[in-house]
Amino acid sequence: MSDERAPDRGPRVVILGGGFGGLACARRLVKEPVDVTLVDRRDYHQFTPLLYQVASALLTAPDIAFPLRRAFRAAANVHIRHARATAVDLDRGLLRTSGAGEIPFDYLVLAAGSENDYFGNPGLAAHTLGMKKLPEAQRLRNHLVACLERAVQIADQEERRRCLTFVVVGGGPTGVEFTGALVELLKLVLGREYRELSLDSARVVLIEGTDRLLPALPEGLGRYARKVLERRGVEVLTGHLVESATAEGVVLAGGQGIASRTVVWSAGIRATELDGLEGVERTRAGRLLTDERLRLPGYPRVYAVGDLAALRVDGAELPMLAPVAMQEGRYAARSILAEVKGSGPPPPFRYRDRGVMAVIGRNAAVAAVGRLRFTGALGWLIWLVVHLYYLIGFRNRVVVLLNWGWNYVRKDRPIRMITHVDPDPLADDLTAWLPAGERIES
Amino acid sequence: MSDERAPDRGPRVVILGGGFGGLACARRLVKEPVDVTLVDRRDYHQFTPLLYQVASALLTAPDIAFPLRRAFRAAANVHIRHARATAVDLDRGLLRTSGAGEIPFDYLVLAAGSENDYFGNPGLAAHTLGMKKLPEAQRLRNHLVACLERAVQIADQEERRRCLTFVVVGGGPTGVEFTGALVELLKLVLGREYRELSLDSARVVLIEGTDRLLPALPEGLGRYARKVLERRGVEVLTGHLVESATAEGVVLAGGQGIASRTVVWSAGIRATELDGLEGVERTRAGRLLTDERLRLPGYPRVYAVGDLAALRVDGAELPMLAPVAMQEGRYAARSILAEVKGSGPPPPFRYRDRGVMAVIGRNAAVAAVGRLRFTGALGWLIWLVVHLYYLIGFRNRVVVLLNWGWNYVRKDRPIRMITHVDPDPLADDLTAWLPAGERIES
Repeated sequence: MSDERAPDRGPRVVILGGGFGGLACARRLVKEPVDVTLVDRRDYHQFTPLLYQVASALLTAPDIAFPLRRAFRAAANVHIRHARATAVDLDRGLLRTSGAGEIPFDYLVLAAGSENDYFGNPGLAAHTLGMKKLPEAQRLRNHLVACLERAVQIADQEERRRCLTFVVVGGGPTGVEFTGALVELLKLVLGREYRELSLDSARVVLIEGTDRLLPALPEGLGRYARKVLERRGVEVLTGHLVESATAEGVVLAGGQGIASRTVVWSAGIRATELDGLEGVERTRAGRLLTDERLRLPGYPRVYAVGDLAALRVDGAELPMLAPVAMQEGRYAARSILAEVKGSGPPPPFRYRDRGVMAVIGRNAAVAAVGRLRFTGALGWLIWLVVHLYYLIGFRNRVVVLLNWGWNYVRKDRPIRMITHVDPDPLADDLTAWLPAGERIES
Repeated sequence: MSDERAPDRGPRVVILGGGFGGLACARRLVKEPVDVTLVDRRDYHQFTPLLYQVASALLTAPDIAFPLRRAFRAAANVHIRHARATAVDLDRGLLRTSGAGEIPFDYLVLAAGSENDYFGNPGLAAHTLGMKKLPEAQRLRNHLVACLERAVQIADQEERRRCLTFVVVGGGPTGVEFTGALVELLKLVLGREYRELSLDSARVVLIEGTDRLLPALPEGLGRYARKVLERRGVEVLTGHLVESATAEGVVLAGGQGIASRTVVWSAGIRATELDGLEGVERTRAGRLLTDERLRLPGYPRVYAVGDLAALRVDGAELPMLAPVAMQEGRYAARSILAEVKGSGPPPPFRYRDRGVMAVIGRNAAVAAVGRLRFTGALGWLIWLVVHLYYLIGFRNRVVVLLNWGWNYVRKDRPIRMITHVDPDPLADDLTAWLPAGERIES
C-alpha cells in the first residue's frame, strides 16, 4: 500500500481499538489538523451493552455492530487498519501489528478495552461461555438452542436436566440483564415451541459472590432486581463464589455442585494485555494507571482510555463502563488537539456521571441518575431511550426498535436459531494475522 | 424422550427436509388426521432465493431464515426433530438418523434437497465458495470483506490484484444475481469506504459454460442480463468452461488463467445423497425418478419432492426450483391424505408454471411469466413483490423490506462486516451428530 500521508497532514495520532473510547476519540478528531489511524482486529464497532440481547435471540449480530470504515467514510483524515496490535514501542513511537506492519505515531491513544477475567482459573476459562464480544454472544445463542434440542432428544433424565439447567455467574449488570432475558426466552419458546418439554423443567440460577445483586448500584435497586428475577423464576444465590467449572457444571466454594451444560461467565473483566507496557503500573484488573490527563506517566504523548485505563479519583478507580470510555476518548482527543494547536493544556479529566442502569426484563429496569432512582416500567423506558440513543447507525436503531416492539407485542423470538459460518478454504493468509479461532480460514 | 404419539393419532408421516418442499408438505398436513415428524439437520427453514443478498451484505442470515419449531408451534400433530438423516430403510419403514435415532414411518416424504455439484472435480470443491446455504453465504460475505481489507494492506501489486478480482462461475439465476449484487457492493464500498483503493482496481468476471446467460430463461432475457451486467462493469465470458481451481485462481478449458482470491461456485447443484436408496433410478444430477404421483417406483408410500426428485414430463425433468418443490410438497400431502381418508387417488402431479425471474441489480430484473416478458424496473418490482410474498415470517418481511429500502435510498450496506462464531467448548456432544464443520463445538 502506498503511503498516502502527505507531509502537511499534521501529527500522526494512532488509536488502538474501535470500542467506545477509541471511536469517541477518533470522531472528535475528524477534520482536525491531525492524521488519524484507527487500528482494530475487528472491522466493526460493537455495541457491548446489547450483547446479551444477541445471546438471547432478540437481536442479530449486525444489528448492534457498525463497520468502522462506514463510520469514517466522510473523514479524509481518519484511516482504518484491520489488524491486531502485537506490541507497542513507547520509546521509538511505534505500534507493531500483525496485519498492517509497524505503524509510527506522534500521539498514541490506547483504547484496547477489556476481556473476560477468570482470575487465573483455567477450568473457568475452558468451561464457561463469556459474553464480551459478538462471536461469544452468537455462540451463546447457538448453545442455548442446542441445549433445548438435545433435551428433546435425550432419554437420560439426568442429562436432560443438565441441558435444561442454566447457570449465570456474576450478578453485575451483564449477569442480571442476561438472566432476565434468558428467563423470558425460555418462557417464550419452552412450552410453545418445545411442546415435549415444559417450562417447569427449566432451571435458571444466578450466582453472585458479594451479598447482593448489582453491587455497583444503590442497594435498593439490587434488592428490586432480585425480587423481580425471583418472581420470574430465577434462583438467586448471593454470597457464593464459584470454585470450579467442568463440562458437567459448577462447584461452589462451599462444595455445593450444580449440574448444568451451560455456565455463562459474567463475573469479571480485565484490561487487555499488550506487550511493551511492562513498565507501566497496573491495577488488579490489569488497567494502566494514568495521570490526571489520562497519559501514561513519563510518556506525555501516550494516552490510555476506557477499560484499559484507570484514573484514580479520590482513591477510587472510575468504573469500566461505556460512558467513562466515551468521555475519556473525547478528552484525549481534546487534549491532543490543544497541544497540536498550542492552545494550552486542558484541565484534568473529570467524569460526569450521568447515571447507571440495568434492565431486568419486560417492563422492569433499574436506573440511578444522580440522587434519583427509577424502577419498573419507568426505569425500563429510560433504559430503552438511552440505549437507542447511543446505538450507532440509523438503520441499526430502526431495526433494533422494530425487534423490541415485535418482542414486546408478539412475545416472539423469530431469530432463535443455530447459525454457523462455514470454514473458508480460500482465506488462507487473508486473515492469518488473527489469533486462531478468529480467522475465517478453514 | 417419551413417545408422545397416541394410537389414535393416525398414520405416521415422516418428512425429511424443511426446505420449500418439506415445509409446504408439512403445512398442508397441519390439523389433518396424520402424525407428522419433520426432520432437518438445521433448526430453521432457509429462504434460498435470497442467499446471495446475505453473501453481498444486504441482509443478515436470520432475516431469511425461520425456525421450524416456530412455524409449527400451533400444530399439535407436527413434531420437529433436529437431526441428520443417515439412511432410509424402505422395506422396514424406518428413517435412521444421527441425533434422533430411528424414526418409523407409514408414509415417507423425501425432501432433502440439493447441494453444490462439482462434477467430480475435487479441486473445484476445495477452492471455490458455494452459495447454497446460510453458513456458505455468511462465509462468502466475510471472505469478500477480508479480500478488500487485505488489498488495502498488501504491498505486492500482483496479490492486491488477486484480492480485487472476483470470479463467479455459472451464469444461471444464482450466478447472475450474485454478480449483480457484488458489483453494486463494490461500487458502494470501494472508493467511499476504502479510499486507498479505487473502483477501477476491482474486476468482476462471470463465466458461463453455455453460449448465453440464464440458459433456462428465454433468450432475449439472457441478452438483456448480459447487457446490464456489462454496462455495470462485469466481464461476461460465455462458452467457457472452468477446468480447474486453485488457491490462486481458475484455469479455463482453453488454458486461459484468471488470478483471483475469490471463486464463487454457482455452476451446478445435485440431489443430496442418502443411503438406502441405491435401488432407485437416478438422473444425472442424482435426482430420484418418481412415478407420476411423485412416489418411488415399488414403494407407493414413499414420496420424493423438490430438487431430490425428478418427474419426467414429456421427456424433460421439472427444474430444480422453489415453486416446483412447493407444489410437489403440497401434492404429496394431498395424495397421502386422500389415501388416509380413503377418498381415492388424486390425478397425476402437474406443475403449474407461474414464471421464472432473476434480478440483475438496482432497477433491473428479468421475468418470464407465461408468454409475457418483463425487464428493467417493472421486472424488478415484480421480483420484489414475489420474493417478499414468499418469504416466511412477518418480521422477516418487514426487516427485509426495510433493508431493501435503505439500500435503495441510501446506497449503503451497513452490515458489511466480518462476523465469527466462537468455538463452543461446552457443546461437546450437544451437536456431535452433525458432520464436522457444522457442529457448534470447539
